[in-house]
Amino acid sequence: MHSVKDLIQIALKEDIGPGDITTDNIIDPEITGRGIIVAKEKLVIAGLEIAGEVFTSIEPEAVCRFFFKDGDSVSNNQVVMQIEGRLRTLLKGERTALNFIQRLSGIATNVRSYVEHLDDKKIRLVDTRKTIPGWRMLEKYAVRVGGAYNHRMGLYDGVLIKDNHIAACGGITKAVESLRDKVSHLVKIEVEVSDLPSVKEALQAKADVIMLDNMDIDRIKEAAALIGKKAVVEVSGGITKENIKLLSGSGVDIISVGALTHSARSVDLSMRIIQ
Amino acid sequence: MHSVKDLIQIALKEDIGPGDITTDNIIDPEITGRGIIVAKEKLVIAGLEIAGEVFTSIEPEAVCRFFFKDGDSVSNNQVVMQIEGRLRTLLKGERTALNFIQRLSGIATNVRSYVEHLDDKKIRLVDTRKTIPGWRMLEKYAVRVGGAYNHRMGLYDGVLIKDNHIAACGGITKAVESLRDKVSHLVKIEVEVSDLPSVKEALQAKADVIMLDNMDIDRIKEAAALIGKKAVVEVSGGITKENIKLLSGSGVDIISVGALTHSARSVDLSMRIIQ
Amino acid sequence: MHSVKDLIQIALKEDIGPGDITTDNIIDPEITGRGIIVAKEKLVIAGLEIAGEVFTSIEPEAVCRFFFKDGDSVSNNQVVMQIEGRLRTLLKGERTALNFIQRLSGIATNVRSYVEHLDDKKIRLVDTRKTIPGWRMLEKYAVRVGGAYNHRMGLYDGVLIKDNHIAACGGITKAVESLRDKVSHLVKIEVEVSDLPSVKEALQAKADVIMLDNMDIDRIKEAAALIGKKAVVEVSGGITKENIKLLSGSGVDIISVGALTHSARSVDLSMRIIQ
Amino acid sequence: MHSVKDLIQIALKEDIGPGDITTDNIIDPEITGRGIIVAKEKLVIAGLEIAGEVFTSIEPEAVCRFFFKDGDSVSNNQVVMQIEGRLRTLLKGERTALNFIQRLSGIATNVRSYVEHLDDKKIRLVDTRKTIPGWRMLEKYAVRVGGAYNHRMGLYDGVLIKDNHIAACGGITKAVESLRDKVSHLVKIEVEVSDLPSVKEALQAKADVIMLDNMDIDRIKEAAALIGKKAVVEVSGGITKENIKLLSGSGVDIISVGALTHSARSVDLSMRIIQ
Amino acid sequence: MHSVKDLIQIALKEDIGPGDITTDNIIDPEITGRGIIVAKEKLVIAGLEIAGEVFTSIEPEAVCRFFFKDGDSVSNNQVVMQIEGRLRTLLKGERTALNFIQRLSGIATNVRSYVEHLDDKKIRLVDTRKTIPGWRMLEKYAVRVGGAYNHRMGLYDGVLIKDNHIAACGGITKAVESLRDKVSHLVKIEVEVSDLPSVKEALQAKADVIMLDNMDIDRIKEAAALIGKKAVVEVSGGITKENIKLLSGSGVDIISVGALTHSARSVDLSMRIIQ
Amino acid sequence: MHSVKDLIQIALKEDIGPGDITTDNIIDPEITGRGIIVAKEKLVIAGLEIAGEVFTSIEPEAVCRFFFKDGDSVSNNQVVMQIEGRLRTLLKGERTALNFIQRLSGIATNVRSYVEHLDDKKIRLVDTRKTIPGWRMLEKYAVRVGGAYNHRMGLYDGVLIKDNHIAACGGITKAVESLRDKVSHLVKIEVEVSDLPSVKEALQAKADVIMLDNMDIDRIKEAAALIGKKAVVEVSGGITKENIKLLSGSGVDIISVGALTHSARSVDLSMRIIQ
Repeated sequence: MHSVKDLIQIALKEDIGPGDITTDNIIDPEITGRGIIVAKEKLVIAGLEIAGEVFTSIEPEAVCRFFFKDGDSVSNNQVVMQIEGRLRTLLKGERTALNFIQRLSGIATNVRSYVEHLDDKKIRLVDTRKTIPGWRMLEKYAVRVGGAYNHRMGLYDGVLIKDNHIAACGGITKAVESLRDKVSHLVKIEVEVSDLPSVKEALQAKADVIMLDNMDIDRIKEAAALIGKKAVVEVSGGITKENIKLLSGSGVDIISVGALTHSARSVDLSMRIIQ
Repeated sequence: MHSVKDLIQIALKEDIGPGDITTDNIIDPEITGRGIIVAKEKLVIAGLEIAGEVFTSIEPEAVCRFFFKDGDSVSNNQVVMQIEGRLRTLLKGERTALNFIQRLSGIATNVRSYVEHLDDKKIRLVDTRKTIPGWRMLEKYAVRVGGAYNHRMGLYDGVLIKDNHIAACGGITKAVESLRDKVSHLVKIEVEVSDLPSVKEALQAKADVIMLDNMDIDRIKEAAALIGKKAVVEVSGGITKENIKLLSGSGVDIISVGALTHSARSVDLSMRIIQ
Repeated sequence: MHSVKDLIQIALKEDIGPGDITTDNIIDPEITGRGIIVAKEKLVIAGLEIAGEVFTSIEPEAVCRFFFKDGDSVSNNQVVMQIEGRLRTLLKGERTALNFIQRLSGIATNVRSYVEHLDDKKIRLVDTRKTIPGWRMLEKYAVRVGGAYNHRMGLYDGVLIKDNHIAACGGITKAVESLRDKVSHLVKIEVEVSDLPSVKEALQAKADVIMLDNMDIDRIKEAAALIGKKAVVEVSGGITKENIKLLSGSGVDIISVGALTHSARSVDLSMRIIQ
Repeated sequence: MHSVKDLIQIALKEDIGPGDITTDNIIDPEITGRGIIVAKEKLVIAGLEIAGEVFTSIEPEAVCRFFFKDGDSVSNNQVVMQIEGRLRTLLKGERTALNFIQRLSGIATNVRSYVEHLDDKKIRLVDTRKTIPGWRMLEKYAVRVGGAYNHRMGLYDGVLIKDNHIAACGGITKAVESLRDKVSHLVKIEVEVSDLPSVKEALQAKADVIMLDNMDIDRIKEAAALIGKKAVVEVSGGITKENIKLLSGSGVDIISVGALTHSARSVDLSMRIIQ
Repeated sequence: MHSVKDLIQIALKEDIGPGDITTDNIIDPEITGRGIIVAKEKLVIAGLEIAGEVFTSIEPEAVCRFFFKDGDSVSNNQVVMQIEGRLRTLLKGERTALNFIQRLSGIATNVRSYVEHLDDKKIRLVDTRKTIPGWRMLEKYAVRVGGAYNHRMGLYDGVLIKDNHIAACGGITKAVESLRDKVSHLVKIEVEVSDLPSVKEALQAKADVIMLDNMDIDRIKEAAALIGKKAVVEVSGGITKENIKLLSGSGVDIISVGALTHSARSVDLSMRIIQ
Repeated sequence: MHSVKDLIQIALKEDIGPGDITTDNIIDPEITGRGIIVAKEKLVIAGLEIAGEVFTSIEPEAVCRFFFKDGDSVSNNQVVMQIEGRLRTLLKGERTALNFIQRLSGIATNVRSYVEHLDDKKIRLVDTRKTIPGWRMLEKYAVRVGGAYNHRMGLYDGVLIKDNHIAACGGITKAVESLRDKVSHLVKIEVEVSDLPSVKEALQAKADVIMLDNMDIDRIKEAAALIGKKAVVEVSGGITKENIKLLSGSGVDIISVGALTHSARSVDLSMRIIQ
């Protein structure tokens, strides 16, 4: 699995390629400068250290200073960080650093606003696997920065039995039992269901987590009551900032929302260079 | 520079990691099935072949059939493609394939709506370098699919002299002349300016392209008249779907809009499996 | 994370390097042959397909036929598989293929003998992370082939709170609660304890799994009784083929044994070539 | 060919993957500690610096101190090295570092006991290519640490003509002559033989080294006498710690033993952390 | 795209492989020394820092001192640089460092002599894509060091329409227009022509650069006159040091010469070690 | 160590980068064609299959036909190979394929002419390590194709004790004995000497190969006589096509010539496309 360092390298190669033909040809390598990154709208900042690493990947001696930490709310025109280094470094790293921080802060800002709409503090808001390919770890990090939680990282660190698994195995009970016998004793088993009989079957099969998929609010409450505390209750599908409040006090433990990541837009930050 | 194939590998490793512990443990490797990918809203499709490659990367014998081609408009509930292969392949590739196609179609859909707002067909709408790190080539592809054009790919294939370059070189004239003497005779030189005296200086220095940065519409028209056809005129900053029409007949050649990529949200597509 | 295919490539490069100077210089590339791999002692076979892939990595057209499947018991002198291909392929792949199959079968054979000594079929025998660096996935595969189960794959897919974690957090309760608040709702929490008060504290903190580390048999039984079925009971440390029977009926759910992998020796198989 | 540094990276990625979900979630990144690695049985130590590199790969500022050097005999409970660094580093690197040092010391310990059984100091004990795929360089290093010598590293740095080569070339003489004409003048040519007529043919063909494969002790002595000092005499197959003494004074130059590596078990070392 | 650092790694692995069996076995790792690199003929030096990086890649603490800078003329027997470090480092890096500097200086020396034969300083001498695979960036660097200019770096950063493109598109006009509509507005379009009617067509199609391929000197002058200054004029094919003077005052802007790189021979430099 | 396949990938990425902006924009992907590669001077061909692999790396279905085999003499204007595939493939692979074949045939042609000047067929002409970094294997292959032999591949597969090794060890005898005790019994030991006393010392130390470095012809003959057949005699330094004949009958076994590779120029071949 690639690391953040790998992704920074990929990004720099993608942008600089065989060379920055503007900067390399007219900027003296000895000139130094100071760059500041400024918020151009109200936002929740995320990715400060990654932006810093973009510059230190180009020039290990470059020095970054951060005026906020990831998760802080930042107002329009506030300076979030500063970089001191060669002018060439600042010019070459600018766009890539901004692209990282704009996307991550965009997600964190989006997540924060969902979190603020949810007033039942016993319910956990979690993300999904609907992330930009190559960005899973980073987007899940931004989700945490924004104040929500992570669902499983990928297909390898959590069991989620979906309708197609159930159909292929011949029912929820068989699927759960078959998995229980094979996976590590450290792994919980979650089953996705969309009606009450399935909730009951999952409960009897001793699923650890039951995901109520695209159910309406009344059905969700009924299912949660049925489950009692015998399994963790997760709700998924159709949740928006507008209707999330309806789940307060419903007995639900977890709400998973794909839009936390897939519908976030980049927020605006820019860099100014002071030579 | 990484290829699309590399990115697909990165994405699959990121999602599947050491193994899909649900599917690998309960789905018989011999069972085959058919998956269909369905639009869940009106959209411009992009990334069909990439989605196909996700599945054939897992199982080279899997067979994809496409019912549209990239750039086509698709209505809600239309089936865009189908994959035949092992059920394991369908289940493991589903999320990654959707993540690719949702992001790319999201950009293409966004771009198309900008293109439709611009009624002067002599003006070219182009993207910027505000793309997700690691996704530059793919996002620029989606921009073309949506009906717009690409600006330079990166720092290596086009010269763009910005304010910091100008300041460090001691003026537009020096910067342009110094670059002209160094870059290949196949490369055009673009200068970013924000007032009319700079437009004149860039013109005199024989810049090939002049970018009018964040000027108001009257100033843009004045600058375009001044330039005549002696340089390509690019406008950048502050352009929205709402105001883009104002540039019709302004004499501008190019409009670059970062929001084509950085503000696109993923559109909704899902996969259904028919065993 | 590297795949088995990557490891096969690493292994072939390590052995062949810039070229097999014996074979490449005197064996005509057109000559073909048939190689058979033969057990030279009684063993549980594991790694047949991996051995096959060694040869097909060198020559994609080589054809392997398997006379057993992984997990089968094989007697001395039985032929386990055959490869048809160029003689050069057989000679270059021989040692690498055997090195894979000898190590994996060595582990499977070792595991099988532990399994046979454990007569309480409700208890699961599991491995540990004491594996050869680079071989984690393969060794854990051989453990399953031998008839035992896998503990977590690595530090990323299961929580195990050890004494140093507890000390740094200020007690079991704090460590468990702090983790519960941070990890995914799909992850179980295991706590390592070495005395009864700690068992009680772990139980009260609602640990999902309690690992009894290096306790004697009486203490283990006492702890298991205490836990009832309120947590999974794992025993670790000091278990040998000789004393494993003592745990029958003890109420223990899981026994983890590092020796399954770290003390396995390679078993003997050889290849004969018939031109 | 991968380096030791590459293998350490592979090993850390394999164990830590996307993150140590226990440690990263509850151990403060600022807490530091001291870890000591202790022998839990009598052993010959090997891999101290590699274990150190595991920790410095995670945290370049971590400081290791070694109380022995590779090849030293260590008693039960002796401390072999100490690491000072962040507690997170110690916890994340512990298992991987131990897995390296336990395997390498296991081989060195095994080799040392063979060396001690061989009392003819003119005979060189050497290893074979029966090593764990990916570990060739490391295992051959541990063999030297244990007091024995290395045979060729792989197929690229030494010629060894085996029965299948001989059959395909039409005899020993043809094989040797054909190779002599093709390989570098810096490479010696070894021929594997299993009877006396073949010894004679190899001798006449001017083989530099003659390997007596699976011959009994009387035949070995006869062959050695026949060869005189006109070629190096290597013996291979069936040598154990018990019978190795029989070769003393036999005129043999080299004894190669696969069991030096393939039958070594890991020795026991553990790490204790003192915060 | 690989970097110079990557190529240095490739080169060191290629030469040292699993180890320098001479040096590693008999040179004490603690012995240090000083190496000097000496020109063994008159040459234009290129690659000094790259040679230095070869040594610091092996031993980061090695210290290099340069007595010239790339592009300087150096006489026979002059010392161009010195390296202080471990004797092992000097011995292992020697051949690789020399191989880099000998090739690059060979190109720079060759280029310099072409430049000296061209007495019309308004004409730019440029290279081609006839470079050693893997060495494009380095060879183009040596060309600049020698005093000439670079044509496009590859197929990605400049348009050059050749006869086969023209044939496939149905004529120069169609090819140019079709490309103009597709490539970025920052890219110039060059057309290769071999007769005057094609020159006229290219001119009318508004090609930015016209390459006169393998024309004789009279035809070149005629074409240049025809083009006026309406396009950049490039001449290619058949140019030698002997005939390059004939193009002085011909109105040509660019001369491209493949022999700058493909016919350069390595110049002679050697290293002496002073312990 | 990188393979030829890796180098082809590196070369294609270097030339094509993010895309061939000429071809990709105007050549229909469905158009196919036939390309022929033609010698533009008399040469010894080398690299035919590698050139073929360049095209099949781009398009696996492309079909190559070879009209010669590596090592054949080819006259001006003869067609050496043909490629059938998509026109895009031919245009994208052309320059890279030619760059490979021109360099390799350049070396083979150069080597052949040395071989023809040497009329003592008992003497072996060998290359050195003076090769283009990254091209060691390929250049050594071209040397064999041209009719000469290879010295060691790198520092890992042969021992060569040079003056600095000797100085650091305290004399030839100590260096040879120390190495004999450490390297594999399959490795020969070569010593570089430059005067007769050193020849004698090397002989007494039982060096397997003695390299006479930069000696004049009389001294060489004297040394060869002294050595008798007790060691292989290699001559190095100052050998040219003109003086190589003088070594006929001198008793020398091996002549190593760096100019075989480092002074070869690329020969001329071109590609014509027939659509």
